[in-house]
Amino acid sequence: MFQGDVQTSRGVSERGFVLQVEDRTVPGVLWQPEGAAGTRPLVLLGHGGSGHKREDYILALARRLVRHQGFSVAAIDGPMHGDRRADGGLDRDRVWEERQSRRGSVDQTDAMVADWRAALGWLQDELGAGPVGYWGLSMGTVYGLPFVAAEPRVEAAVLGLMGVAAAPVEDVYRERMRARFGHDAPRISIPVLFLVQWHDELVPRDDAINLFGLLGSERKAMHVNVGRHAAVPAIEYDASERFFEELLAPAPVGA
Amino acid sequence: MFQGDVQTSRGVSERGFVLQVEDRTVPGVLWQPEGAAGTRPLVLLGHGGSGHKREDYILALARRLVRHQGFSVAAIDGPMHGDRRADGGLDRDRVWEERQSRRGSVDQTDAMVADWRAALGWLQDELGAGPVGYWGLSMGTVYGLPFVAAEPRVEAAVLGLMGVAAAPVEDVYRERMRARFGHDAPRISIPVLFLVQWHDELVPRDDAINLFGLLGSERKAMHVNVGRHAAVPAIEYDASERFFEELLAPAPVGA
Repeated sequence: MFQGDVQTSRGVSERGFVLQVEDRTVPGVLWQPEGAAGTRPLVLLGHGGSGHKREDYILALARRLVRHQGFSVAAIDGPMHGDRRADGGLDRDRVWEERQSRRGSVDQTDAMVADWRAALGWLQDELGAGPVGYWGLSMGTVYGLPFVAAEPRVEAAVLGLMGVAAAPVEDVYRERMRARFGHDAPRISIPVLFLVQWHDELVPRDDAINLFGLLGSERKAMHVNVGRHAAVPAIEYDASERFFEELLAPAPVGA
Repeated sequence: MFQGDVQTSRGVSERGFVLQVEDRTVPGVLWQPEGAAGTRPLVLLGHGGSGHKREDYILALARRLVRHQGFSVAAIDGPMHGDRRADGGLDRDRVWEERQSRRGSVDQTDAMVADWRAALGWLQDELGAGPVGYWGLSMGTVYGLPFVAAEPRVEAAVLGLMGVAAAPVEDVYRERMRARFGHDAPRISIPVLFLVQWHDELVPRDDAINLFGLLGSERKAMHVNVGRHAAVPAIEYDASERFFEELLAPAPVGA
């Protein structure tokens, strides 16, 4: 259900929501053109590790998709992130450390896939069922790639800043992801834009390129830029917007 | 010197030229906005193997850069290609076979670099010295990458559909290119957009990615698309135009 008041900023209205999925309380946020009525494309944004549903680049991308394209945009907090935590998850270092300490013990993927699918269902009940896109890098791909593989309503996805080794690895977390991606990536058939950072200090470039290769999509493109993990250049946010514009727009006449 | 009449098509004027460089007669073509006056950005187009200076995708790219951006655009025929041949070089298979049969024996690179530099000098004499870009894939990179490395007047380049092995290879032609690119690529410091085809049947993708890695540019991006060597999607021509627009435009006020 929606929670709290509608906040409006330069033509973009924003409203929180909260869903109950199994035993989990899932906090989310929805952005729309001010005074929006009628069904329009919806883009789901998956934030990165130690971030949250309203961190700077998520908020900026949401607002530009609303302002430039007239889309609806939604984000939910990831497991152990944001408002799923008592402390609100604004202390990045603390969130990062807790996640790292638990990453070998619990696989949150199935739960997060279920949370996204529930959120999409609820959003379509509220807003109508228009074209759907997904955008998520790094942890946004860890959970987003399996979500996209499982969810036929998603028609286009921007993924990246993640990879898998070509051969088995000893690290439990990485090996589990390798198995999961090895199963899910070939099942993806929608258009994908995949982003890679050439100097990524967290994801070896060969692993990222390998993951791109595993994607089953007939149409897929990989954009590789120089710089470290978090240094995705502004030009790729432009490219993301164009990608969704091409594949999800135009909005229906009623929008 | 210019050769032949000016032909005009929907706002684009086109005129042939021919230059004498050492013992070589170099045929070229210049495209400009109809009635152009004043200095404007200039983009040089290097065609691919078995093609020529006015083949379909070269002509299409030239016209869009003139029409959308108001740039000047020029192309010259490569060694053993186009109007450098008595037969005009329109029989692709014949040109391809002759080039393949000679590719181990003569290195045309230094000559083509000299031809491009002479053409650029003559064009700037005629048109004024505005910002300069280079675009060339496949054979357009075989010659274009050394040209860009040698020519400080070029400010931005689109390269690709070419690669080098990471280790020495037995093939004489490929080994010579490996040595040449190994020397030249790190010396390139201008922004580069580098295009790769994931299913390239002529250039192994690992070699292409390796060549991207060798480029010395602080700003470089690699766009990888699915499909074979010649199947570069239209979206990358859009990207090429945007790249030059960002880096070479706006045209000076006098344009």
